[in-house]
Amino acid sequence: MRFPTSAARVGSDAMHPDPDYSAAVVVVETDRDDGIEGHGLAFTLGRGNEVVVAAIEALAPLVVGLPLEAIRSDMGWVWRRLAGDGQLRWLGPEKGVIHLATAAIVNALWDLRARWTAQPLWRHLVDCPPEELVACIDFRHLTDALTPDTALALLRGRAADRSAAVARLDHEGLAAYTTAPGWLGYADHELASRCRQAAAEGWGLVKLKVGQSLEDDRRRCAIAREAIGPQRRLAVDANQVWDVDTAIAWTRQLMAFDLRWVEEPTSCDDVLGHATIARAVAPVTVATGEHVHNRVMFKQFLAAGAMGVCQLDACRLGGVNEVLAVLCLAALHDVPVCPHAGGVGLCEMVVHLAAFDALAVGGERADRTVEWVEGLHEHFQDPVAASGGRYALPTAPGFGTALRPESVRRYRYPDGEAWRQRTGAVAPASPG
Amino acid sequence: MRFPTSAARVGSDAMHPDPDYSAAVVVVETDRDDGIEGHGLAFTLGRGNEVVVAAIEALAPLVVGLPLEAIRSDMGWVWRRLAGDGQLRWLGPEKGVIHLATAAIVNALWDLRARWTAQPLWRHLVDCPPEELVACIDFRHLTDALTPDTALALLRGRAADRSAAVARLDHEGLAAYTTAPGWLGYADHELASRCRQAAAEGWGLVKLKVGQSLEDDRRRCAIAREAIGPQRRLAVDANQVWDVDTAIAWTRQLMAFDLRWVEEPTSCDDVLGHATIARAVAPVTVATGEHVHNRVMFKQFLAAGAMGVCQLDACRLGGVNEVLAVLCLAALHDVPVCPHAGGVGLCEMVVHLAAFDALAVGGERADRTVEWVEGLHEHFQDPVAASGGRYALPTAPGFGTALRPESVRRYRYPDGEAWRQRTGAVAPASPG
Repeated sequence: MRFPTSAARVGSDAMHPDPDYSAAVVVVETDRDDGIEGHGLAFTLGRGNEVVVAAIEALAPLVVGLPLEAIRSDMGWVWRRLAGDGQLRWLGPEKGVIHLATAAIVNALWDLRARWTAQPLWRHLVDCPPEELVACIDFRHLTDALTPDTALALLRGRAADRSAAVARLDHEGLAAYTTAPGWLGYADHELASRCRQAAAEGWGLVKLKVGQSLEDDRRRCAIAREAIGPQRRLAVDANQVWDVDTAIAWTRQLMAFDLRWVEEPTSCDDVLGHATIARAVAPVTVATGEHVHNRVMFKQFLAAGAMGVCQLDACRLGGVNEVLAVLCLAALHDVPVCPHAGGVGLCEMVVHLAAFDALAVGGERADRTVEWVEGLHEHFQDPVAASGGRYALPTAPGFGTALRPESVRRYRYPDGEAWRQRTGAVAPASPG
Repeated sequence: MRFPTSAARVGSDAMHPDPDYSAAVVVVETDRDDGIEGHGLAFTLGRGNEVVVAAIEALAPLVVGLPLEAIRSDMGWVWRRLAGDGQLRWLGPEKGVIHLATAAIVNALWDLRARWTAQPLWRHLVDCPPEELVACIDFRHLTDALTPDTALALLRGRAADRSAAVARLDHEGLAAYTTAPGWLGYADHELASRCRQAAAEGWGLVKLKVGQSLEDDRRRCAIAREAIGPQRRLAVDANQVWDVDTAIAWTRQLMAFDLRWVEEPTSCDDVLGHATIARAVAPVTVATGEHVHNRVMFKQFLAAGAMGVCQLDACRLGGVNEVLAVLCLAALHDVPVCPHAGGVGLCEMVVHLAAFDALAVGGERADRTVEWVEGLHEHFQDPVAASGGRYALPTAPGFGTALRPESVRRYRYPDGEAWRQRTGAVAPASPG
């Protein structure tokens, strides 16, 4: 599935000037009488989406034909089967295309589990016994930071009566922030009016893309700060465009605008670089995670004090199993989890993960805020909604990523109606 | 291209029990009258090779149609074009499948350049002016450790008259070590006889796979040490099977056998874990690199003292351009570069990189030893040769990775003769 978002410069930032938001989609069918399915996806930026599809096809034989009981009772085994294949792991291991494909499949299986219990995923996870959640985590390469015993103690400590917290979350929703005003492609007047609108709508934090021009960024931060006023929070996101020294110097030039965080100041792989930046730009916090590719990297970022805000991605990590590990690591380090979202389906997914974190792992905390980005929600059967600075808690069963059949028909690449003229592809023999 | 190596348990280790050594192959054709081509490949373990092919096809439009002059005079620009595509970089960035594909293409272009000058690649690189080599390096995210000025000073410092060193290397060859005795699949008597044979042939270092059973490893190390005698060196390779604490405890149990290094003791992503292990197991050196996915990771491994032997991979890194960066980083940290090899075509490639390192970057040093693995060399037009513990310096033009047409016909997957019966594929319409 691809959406021609580059035409409107939606999603433009310092490293990704023209994304066509896309998704490699997995639908897991079952032979149950009720026809229950699991839906998952991996978000990409357009070109290369077909490479993730190829990786999903390479992993599929590891899942097709599994007994449903394995998915219900031993997702830890299923995860290790996918992530640990002796031939396929060379392609990562546990990173890049093959890990995105793992995520799409694993998340489809969790969607299936949640639909099976007729619960939204966050509720399904909350109701899973701590022992079962711990059994889903692959502790390989983690035990110097997180052991099964530590994880179990953490989850058990949160497993007391949660009905009051659930009711509160259900009533108030999850705190969210918006990136709608801040894409690099917008002119100043559009930035200002979008910031004023965001403040009027009640968003507590606005995030701007930065990193192309220091002069522009100072002007844009000033515009944004004036538009939202001194009470609301402002964050900036460099999308890895800087080297370590530049990140420090540039962030210091923007500190006057009272930044909540500086996001992706340098390479997503540079744990030690982020730690250096974090020490140099305090009290501004360093946020990262959307490109941090597995639990071993999060382990190091957190241990090194290189990640003050944990922005895990629902399908960059290898699906819910690996997210569980990272939620535990962040909680042990007392770092808020503010998941990356936007794109295609990321908002739909992360609301479940953040609600579960609030109720069962990290606990209620004022500094948890979940990214919200407008756009493309209408293509989902159960679109997530946010307004007034809060996400509404999902109520529909599943993980939220099932696409509407008419959207699939229109945006499937290259043969959907929206692409056929551009690509010269022919209509599929059987629509949908 | 896939070779059914799993049948003989060649290449078996603690994480990869049944590899079918494979390669995603790139041939860059030109419209020159002399029909000059460039050949490159990315090594994989079998399943998933087609995913790398899909990634190569996704990158191909960035190269097809380029003027040859760009490849001759601005490989830095070409590299950034491939690694920095605004949509494709989401699939990595600079890691996993998309980076393997980048390597295959970039190395094909370097092969083309070397054929153009009718030189083996090592000689072509030695003859490139330092300014031109520095212009090939992408310094993004490196400048806190390596700047263009530092790299230029390093390369200029080695650029004095090299004719004596070339003659010496040409006469003596490059020091090499063998893994032939040490695959996990071998029985004790086979291990012993292969170790005795290696010693008799003159190999100065033998490497054993370890990590499945401590008791077995102690017995196997004892057998190997007895077979090769006290003078020759012994190294062990765990292929990432251990967690940090296990790596320390296990390595200490094997130290009595006088280990030159312990290789891949834990996750390839765990810089801080490797640093902890390195401190704990000294004087045994920690070696790693074959899965270390880009220059930013090498920067950290070297800065943290987590990599005492740099085992870069010729096609895990994004081709020669990125290898240049890592060679400079290793030289600045006074760490020997002992490239990973084996598989399909890796020996053919690394001999060029190690010779260039010896002549122009790291300099002559007694602790440089290049991995040598028997097998599959016969499929190359210019197979590399090693004997008596030394690689012979290649003399044929190029990077050594052009396959023989008859091997392509036989092992192309799924339609080559060697696979057709197993896969049910039909013969290609036009062989070769």
